[in-house]
Amino acid sequence: MGKYCTTLTITLLFSTCAIFAQPKNYIKWVNPFIGTERMGHTFPGATVPFGAVQLSPDTDTIPYSSNGKYNPDVYKYCAGYQYGDSTIVGFSHTHFSGTGHSDLGDILVMPTVGKLYLNPGTASNTNTGYRSKFSHSNEFAEPNYYRVKLLDYNILAELTTTTRVGLHRYTFPETDSAHIIIDLVHGIYNYPEKNVWTFIRVENDTLITGYRQTSGWARTRTVYFAITFSKPFKTYGIINGDKLIYKGFWRKFNQNTNFPENAGREIRCHFDFSTANHEQILLKVALSPVSTSGAVENLNAEAPGWDFDAIKNKGQEQWNDELGKIEVETLTDSDKVNFYTSMYHAFLSPTIYMDTDRKYRGLDQNIYTATNFDNYTTFSLWDTYRALHPLFNIIQPKRNVDMVKSMLAHYSQSVHGMLPIWSHYANENWCMIGYHAVSVIADAAVKGNDGFDLPYALMACVQSAKNNWYDGLGYYRELGYVPEDISGSSVSKTLEYAYDDWCIAQLAKKLNREDIYNEFISRSNNFQNVFDKSIGFMRPRLSNGSFKTSFNVLSTHGQGFIEGNSWNYSLYVPHNPDALVSMLGGKKQLRTYLDTLFTMHLPDEYFSETEDITRDGLIGNYVHGNEPSHHVPYLYNWTDNPWKTQYWVRTICNLMYQPKPDGLSGNDDCGQMSAWYIFSALGFYPVAPASPNYAIGSPLVTKATIKLENGKTLIISTQNQAKNNVYVQKVLLNGKPYSSYFLNHNDIASGGEITFIMGDKPKKLK
Amino acid sequence: MGKYCTTLTITLLFSTCAIFAQPKNYIKWVNPFIGTERMGHTFPGATVPFGAVQLSPDTDTIPYSSNGKYNPDVYKYCAGYQYGDSTIVGFSHTHFSGTGHSDLGDILVMPTVGKLYLNPGTASNTNTGYRSKFSHSNEFAEPNYYRVKLLDYNILAELTTTTRVGLHRYTFPETDSAHIIIDLVHGIYNYPEKNVWTFIRVENDTLITGYRQTSGWARTRTVYFAITFSKPFKTYGIINGDKLIYKGFWRKFNQNTNFPENAGREIRCHFDFSTANHEQILLKVALSPVSTSGAVENLNAEAPGWDFDAIKNKGQEQWNDELGKIEVETLTDSDKVNFYTSMYHAFLSPTIYMDTDRKYRGLDQNIYTATNFDNYTTFSLWDTYRALHPLFNIIQPKRNVDMVKSMLAHYSQSVHGMLPIWSHYANENWCMIGYHAVSVIADAAVKGNDGFDLPYALMACVQSAKNNWYDGLGYYRELGYVPEDISGSSVSKTLEYAYDDWCIAQLAKKLNREDIYNEFISRSNNFQNVFDKSIGFMRPRLSNGSFKTSFNVLSTHGQGFIEGNSWNYSLYVPHNPDALVSMLGGKKQLRTYLDTLFTMHLPDEYFSETEDITRDGLIGNYVHGNEPSHHVPYLYNWTDNPWKTQYWVRTICNLMYQPKPDGLSGNDDCGQMSAWYIFSALGFYPVAPASPNYAIGSPLVTKATIKLENGKTLIISTQNQAKNNVYVQKVLLNGKPYSSYFLNHNDIASGGEITFIMGDKPKKLK
Repeated sequence: MGKYCTTLTITLLFSTCAIFAQPKNYIKWVNPFIGTERMGHTFPGATVPFGAVQLSPDTDTIPYSSNGKYNPDVYKYCAGYQYGDSTIVGFSHTHFSGTGHSDLGDILVMPTVGKLYLNPGTASNTNTGYRSKFSHSNEFAEPNYYRVKLLDYNILAELTTTTRVGLHRYTFPETDSAHIIIDLVHGIYNYPEKNVWTFIRVENDTLITGYRQTSGWARTRTVYFAITFSKPFKTYGIINGDKLIYKGFWRKFNQNTNFPENAGREIRCHFDFSTANHEQILLKVALSPVSTSGAVENLNAEAPGWDFDAIKNKGQEQWNDELGKIEVETLTDSDKVNFYTSMYHAFLSPTIYMDTDRKYRGLDQNIYTATNFDNYTTFSLWDTYRALHPLFNIIQPKRNVDMVKSMLAHYSQSVHGMLPIWSHYANENWCMIGYHAVSVIADAAVKGNDGFDLPYALMACVQSAKNNWYDGLGYYRELGYVPEDISGSSVSKTLEYAYDDWCIAQLAKKLNREDIYNEFISRSNNFQNVFDKSIGFMRPRLSNGSFKTSFNVLSTHGQGFIEGNSWNYSLYVPHNPDALVSMLGGKKQLRTYLDTLFTMHLPDEYFSETEDITRDGLIGNYVHGNEPSHHVPYLYNWTDNPWKTQYWVRTICNLMYQPKPDGLSGNDDCGQMSAWYIFSALGFYPVAPASPNYAIGSPLVTKATIKLENGKTLIISTQNQAKNNVYVQKVLLNGKPYSSYFLNHNDIASGGEITFIMGDKPKKLK
Repeated sequence: MGKYCTTLTITLLFSTCAIFAQPKNYIKWVNPFIGTERMGHTFPGATVPFGAVQLSPDTDTIPYSSNGKYNPDVYKYCAGYQYGDSTIVGFSHTHFSGTGHSDLGDILVMPTVGKLYLNPGTASNTNTGYRSKFSHSNEFAEPNYYRVKLLDYNILAELTTTTRVGLHRYTFPETDSAHIIIDLVHGIYNYPEKNVWTFIRVENDTLITGYRQTSGWARTRTVYFAITFSKPFKTYGIINGDKLIYKGFWRKFNQNTNFPENAGREIRCHFDFSTANHEQILLKVALSPVSTSGAVENLNAEAPGWDFDAIKNKGQEQWNDELGKIEVETLTDSDKVNFYTSMYHAFLSPTIYMDTDRKYRGLDQNIYTATNFDNYTTFSLWDTYRALHPLFNIIQPKRNVDMVKSMLAHYSQSVHGMLPIWSHYANENWCMIGYHAVSVIADAAVKGNDGFDLPYALMACVQSAKNNWYDGLGYYRELGYVPEDISGSSVSKTLEYAYDDWCIAQLAKKLNREDIYNEFISRSNNFQNVFDKSIGFMRPRLSNGSFKTSFNVLSTHGQGFIEGNSWNYSLYVPHNPDALVSMLGGKKQLRTYLDTLFTMHLPDEYFSETEDITRDGLIGNYVHGNEPSHHVPYLYNWTDNPWKTQYWVRTICNLMYQPKPDGLSGNDDCGQMSAWYIFSALGFYPVAPASPNYAIGSPLVTKATIKLENGKTLIISTQNQAKNNVYVQKVLLNGKPYSSYFLNHNDIASGGEITFIMGDKPKKLK
């Protein structure tokens, strides 16, 4: 006993010394370029964890053409940047990470030299506008820092941020015609008429304020800004390209040159300087959801000085703190890059949505004060309820409670009586299906991360699940399924509603509301109503009760599904895999089904219907690039060959996540794809959030030390870890053999050690 | 002495008893229809004094045609109503009174029965839309109450208000298809693209909220609203006619019927009821410059119940209090109607612009709290500095100080460093010329109504007068005049700047700032720089110093003037008529000049250039319908025939103000025309605001009792008052003979009695 204590003390002292002596550098393992090529839809720019400002280069945004015709290439630019491009339009302050539809790209800044252009010009000829060529050899990115040489202008551009402020440092050549362009027209997914209004004031020769109001994916969105320059501009100009609007008595002034206020739909402006060689001009751009005075306040509170490096370092310390919540050892550096880049992507959203004085804009466009929580936006819940929020319940519990509180605030402001579907800058954009906020809420509650008003949360969940006008929900309540002839994607909706209803039942159970539990546990069985026993697949039903006749289990569009065909979606009963086993005829039948899924060939005609992913985002007919299948590889745990989960999970980790710009097989989807990887690399996965159980997979790491907010530490360790040793031979829980394929959340949250003994042959746990 | 006191006591007792026994009814002398035909541009609807809500029927607004072409008839509809019309489009909540350009007409409400229309239809065929025929025989208006029968629907509509809430009472016939239309597209001067954004939420079956954001005369203006219904609607619909905008994932809902939120550029909605015969449905519409939550708060604070008559009566009591500040006896009832209708029009604007919690939107679009003043907007200062604000210094001194404070707040929020030119709902619309806020400020200060920060006010005045970019001001400062080849209307600007500069000098003098006094008293002589001695008229000069060669003293357009030709504008040296006398060669020469002005014929070709007025707004070449000549009839006081002022003032009172819808000869201009009448009817006029002196005219009233806010009473009494006894024979000041043609403000503000002894022959005062 005496000896044990001594050893412990020495260990603690040693590790404490190590921390003080040399802080761990996790950010060096993050490669922000991962996912920036093709379908990842990530951005390489600068941000702090969950930052309101995410400042990144836009290489193009391919706006809709002037005739309003949809340009399918716009999809590539959901995050504004494509690694394959060779020009940069400028640096804008808001970006979604990994989404499959888009918006934002607010307040574009671009430094130039020489002839003044206020239009972006074209990628094929940068001499026609303010954009510039660049090369990856002159480009560098790490968490909270991005640097690039703008080749057309010989300007070095560097970016860093605080939560609400973007800081730009531009190193100019010697010139008497340096310009900084601020383009309020620019935006991502910028079809005609998207800009509703822009407003700008030049408060003095170093401060400008204003706002950009748009109607896009978010219907009524306004971003307020305040921008300071480290050096007074000599001259400036504001050009309003808006041909449509009445100009009133403003016409009597020349508003284009050195005139301090303008407003309209198409405002672009330039600020002019003379610079010495290598002279640096810095800009601070603060954003606010509330007002320009809020933006000024944010600027003063977060970035009072001009020390670029201090702000950069402070944000990088935040990243080291956040990334260090899981310290991993891996077989290869590539695995470590994948792991920490996934952690990085998982901590980009949801994003802070309130001023430093805690004011924020609510869903009803009124101003609220978040007195007892940090308010967040950017909830891509159809994606993130699956693994991201469960991950947060382990390593970001405090933030996750604040996210729940943000969702409840959204609900309280919702005239629809709905929890958020896709919460988007004081807007509900209604993207995708289900009401998965209930999953996030129930998961947090069930796992004891319940520092929010539980009865109110239950009421919000129940009301959300009873809005008959919502997306076939009235029919679902009446018939037990969504009829395809009335509401498309009907099977996906039915299956997801059933899972969500089970989540509500779990929350009701915790609150001893038997009435609500019974009602929703009954609803949670509705998945059975769209299962066609005759073919062994989920299949759309019509309002007359019959199954849709024309039907193809490999097709998606018009077949009752969304982002997944029936082959994949038929497995979506995460809350009751045992019932799925029964429906399919037994454990063996489910195993066979899964084997076929992973090994069959999906013909091109059906592949073309799987959105958001590249061909290598498929394994057979398994589509990892879309979310509905994310739990699928873990379903082997319910079959007679549970070890096949281990095989396929390790395979997916290696195939679908690679440390290169095109290393993501599909949209990162606000961190869901990354959260899947983090869980899987640790060796377990939440198949059904709102259940306390995790299914075991195959840890990729050699060791992981998870520092929990409750002060405890959970260690995931392995023995015989190797590339080919993907099969779990034995599990030890705090040193004791553990024979289940499922871990309980208590085993995680209490800390301790979980040891996986690995081997190259399948072995059943005993 | 003993006897005198007794008499006084009895008098006081008697009048006190009289007040308690039977409150004076002044509102019965107000005819809100005066000025609603042709050029008066007044509205007949309901409002309390200086109300934020001015709820009135719009008979048409003749929007610009769909091709964006200007429709000159729009001008008739500056206040939304023309007495000659026979249809009503609906009832909207904001109106300017008497302006010569326009905006507003926010949140149109219209009750209908039968087939549902969401377009207004046409005046020639009301069956094509929701509008209705009406007849003046079924129409009634008095302060804070308007009633009309909507003939197409057999609906009686009644309107009343509080400061921030419009209350509608509609008496329906029996029907199962009663509708209340709310049209957020409707507005005054509603050219294409004016609606920037509208937002609406149906909070429950009796409450809706939202806002209307426009870009018109005010470039960036938003009106927030909250509307409650006394009866729950059965069904409702919101139609967004906006073809241009992206509809996003909202497309998956049927937003047209019973769907509680919409937003876009063209929102119209209907709320449907079944009604019994004579059933009344009431609506309360609260406005806010801040937010929908502000509007809800205003609604609850000002109009918690549904007692239409109580709210109507309360507002009418306010009117009796305000109108009763001057109690007049007149020769005829017509004179009394003219007087009290002028008082009514003078108390319509400026308008309150803040919520009940004192929050308001500032010029920078941020939200401020008016902690120590009531914030006002609608400052049509080029008009109202002349007589309206001087009138307020006598009978509304507290409000006038708050108006000055509102102007100083505007200045503090102005990125242009300017006091307001035309302050318009958190916007500067820059209409007309000069920087006449300085006149209002200096006039208040000089007259001791100075409860505001005087040094700050002086700084604001000085900065406003030194903005070189403003409307030729840089050239004026450099050359001593505005050069016509660089900035049009150059003579009008030069003359008005010179007067404004004299005002600043008066304020500087009061504050013992000799440096500023000297600078601005020098600038105030700049009127001399545009006087062409060779022709005896003010004449535009070019930047090379020469006078413009092609020149016509009767013409206005392109001649260096605005709203007045050289014949009229050459008399614009209000601060130094003695210098004018000298320039013209002596008192006799000025008299001859004035005689000619009043008796010459203005050929039609030049009349067509006088804006805003009808032919009978002219007397000779004197244009009463426009403001630059308002002091002119009083200039005889500086000639050898001072009594001619008395003749012409009485003539103008009788000709230009008549108790009928077309009784105003020109735009009432936010009360300036009316304030001229009130002063003139009392027998004196502020020729140069910021001077403590008033020039004597010819009182129209028999007696006036002016109740000053300092508790004192000023009595204007007459002897031998009669229609033809327009000449002042003798003046007694507190019983003592007074030989001057000028009264001092102290004589007014100290109370007492001024007696005019009248006769039918001119007589020089001795």
